[in-house]
Amino acid sequence: MALYVQKYGGTSVGSVERIEAVADKVKGFRDRGDDVVVVLSAMSGETNRLIGLAKDIQAQPNARELDVLVSTGEQVTIALLCMALHKRGVDARSYTGGQVRIRTDNTHTKARIQDIETERMRADLDAGRVVVVAGFQGVDDNGNITTLGRGGSDTTGVALAAALKADECQIYTDVDGVYTTDPRVVEDARRLDKITFEEMLEMASLGSKVLQIRSVEFAGKYKVPLRVLSSFVDGPGTLITIEDDNTVEKPVISGIAFNRDEAKLTVIGVPDIPGVASRILGPISRANIEVDMIVQNVAADQTTDFTFTVHRNDYEKAQKILEQVVAELGARECAGDNKIAKVSIVGVGMRSHAGVASKMFDALANENINIQMISTSEIKVSVVIAEKYLELAVRALHSSFNLDSSDTVSE
Amino acid sequence: MALYVQKYGGTSVGSVERIEAVADKVKGFRDRGDDVVVVLSAMSGETNRLIGLAKDIQAQPNARELDVLVSTGEQVTIALLCMALHKRGVDARSYTGGQVRIRTDNTHTKARIQDIETERMRADLDAGRVVVVAGFQGVDDNGNITTLGRGGSDTTGVALAAALKADECQIYTDVDGVYTTDPRVVEDARRLDKITFEEMLEMASLGSKVLQIRSVEFAGKYKVPLRVLSSFVDGPGTLITIEDDNTVEKPVISGIAFNRDEAKLTVIGVPDIPGVASRILGPISRANIEVDMIVQNVAADQTTDFTFTVHRNDYEKAQKILEQVVAELGARECAGDNKIAKVSIVGVGMRSHAGVASKMFDALANENINIQMISTSEIKVSVVIAEKYLELAVRALHSSFNLDSSDTVSE
Repeated sequence: MALYVQKYGGTSVGSVERIEAVADKVKGFRDRGDDVVVVLSAMSGETNRLIGLAKDIQAQPNARELDVLVSTGEQVTIALLCMALHKRGVDARSYTGGQVRIRTDNTHTKARIQDIETERMRADLDAGRVVVVAGFQGVDDNGNITTLGRGGSDTTGVALAAALKADECQIYTDVDGVYTTDPRVVEDARRLDKITFEEMLEMASLGSKVLQIRSVEFAGKYKVPLRVLSSFVDGPGTLITIEDDNTVEKPVISGIAFNRDEAKLTVIGVPDIPGVASRILGPISRANIEVDMIVQNVAADQTTDFTFTVHRNDYEKAQKILEQVVAELGARECAGDNKIAKVSIVGVGMRSHAGVASKMFDALANENINIQMISTSEIKVSVVIAEKYLELAVRALHSSFNLDSSDTVSE
Repeated sequence: MALYVQKYGGTSVGSVERIEAVADKVKGFRDRGDDVVVVLSAMSGETNRLIGLAKDIQAQPNARELDVLVSTGEQVTIALLCMALHKRGVDARSYTGGQVRIRTDNTHTKARIQDIETERMRADLDAGRVVVVAGFQGVDDNGNITTLGRGGSDTTGVALAAALKADECQIYTDVDGVYTTDPRVVEDARRLDKITFEEMLEMASLGSKVLQIRSVEFAGKYKVPLRVLSSFVDGPGTLITIEDDNTVEKPVISGIAFNRDEAKLTVIGVPDIPGVASRILGPISRANIEVDMIVQNVAADQTTDFTFTVHRNDYEKAQKILEQVVAELGARECAGDNKIAKVSIVGVGMRSHAGVASKMFDALANENINIQMISTSEIKVSVVIAEKYLELAVRALHSSFNLDSSDTVSE
């Protein structure tokens, strides 16, 4: 008998029929004697419908009210799933984020979970009930409804699994696991049986949209075993775990991630003096714009160029902020490009293998793809290229690192 | 400068355009320096859509989960109205029933308000904000979401007005006031400028569907001046107040109410001994079935007949309960009819006028309408007739008591 936290996404609860199918699945676990806490997203399309209503009224709706509005989406699905479980003779009770007291900070639309009260869920589990919690939402210290931002239901799932010390957090989605890269780009992409948290983190943050990045951070931090599975077809999915040091042979690269949602901004001719980076990024972060890659090279003369990437939606906002910063810093000018893509190779194995980066650069050069930015970490190498080369680059790298399913790769 | 609690119903917030119109109206009051607390229903059709989803899953969904589900309807409108107010430069903040702490008992889908915390609303009003509260919903002592049942948003409005000691509770709806009877049945029906709480109570409970009965009880009990107005056209509406004793000339009858939502049940051949009434109605009330009229005549022999009416939706449920009761009491049998209608004449004036009831019976007799049941109170006389005679009866009474707008009636 295990305790599972199961998160079902929007397409998995997109209709009454799909909700009934989720109820069947949950009943299966209960019948085997497992305890289940279910976390749900809104029905697919519902969040967009609600945001559409808001935008009909105001282009930039107040964040607090937006949270009040969109949090209704999950509240609908939790009630419906409980009814579907009752219909099957399975006792169940629903809770909104505020009711289960998923306490967050007060950054509306992008709140972060601070703690979760588990007494009430424990009591329900002890009483033989399935607990059904609204994903994506919480409540701040003043009782205001908050949301965790898009994809936040994954984070709710992992946070609940951590708080309840669940045996596994299962993320049910419309794909049957984590692949070496997007199968829509590379036909031969392979499902991975296992991937480490660190690799998954790089994969998720870089655009393999299977899981929301914060949920993986959370899972890694609290050592919650995380499994990605399909809610439509049965299968083992992909288990995301702590690195297994006993694995003798590890592939150098686990996967190729990519992302076309970014834009790059460069401040040109920045005086090469201490404190410049924070004077550039300070105003950006205060405007709640998230920065991804940051690259600054050594200064050629007394000045340097400072480049970073943001989400494309924040591109114009960031540009406006930089105009001010350029003036204050006495920098030369600000340049930007929102027709870029980021491609990354990810793998724990690259730690012990030299030459991975150069192999990547070779593969891209062979296709005449110019590299605009490079950024590396212990287990990944990312490059920014022109968006139009994205598919070509991913295919070249997938093949160059022998990730195709036709190859035999020891795992 | 006054404090108004304004309740807008489902058709008044049925679309983004309608919500914008409500925002305009509220802004008008703010511009004149008034404080405003707004109570909203769900967008028209939304509650039925949600209940439809639930019924697709289960014919009799769990009441707790049904409340979680349908309470999302008002949560959507309060957020949207706040956005529309922000757009007009009016500061506003929304609250769900749980957030403003409208504390209720735990009778899901039919909960009753126990108390309301006003500190938070007061602080917002003092800060110059419009407070926008979700109607129809509250929270029990364990933090479970409850709803007050259909039409409960009116009750929320009146309860808030009482708690905040508002100058007036304004119920905006799709009619421009209270009429002498339903204008769809009697073309010459007249809008009343004023009506007493007691009269309104009889009118509401008897089916003039302008206001929900509990809201009028509340308003009368806490002496909250209540005004019914149209949210579509400007006008004074109808003020519902404490009886004004200075009015020299009062019309005998204020209006004709009717109701086709009832069914009658009779237990025939009940032993005429003490405690019988409670043994019949006890099980009915424990099943949460509301009873309206109750008639028991003197016993002819050792037995009597006991008749009462319930909502048509509860007819079959009540019949089943009575079968058991008949057996236990040793009564003869149970009979019922759900093709009935109730018609009532209502007026404070009838207190001091004899012969009102006989005038009513005469008017019905002239049309050959058979009376099945009679029940009277100080300010009303109700009769149950076959449903098919309803319109005929209402028109005959409206004319017989000189309520037609073509007549001059002192008010």
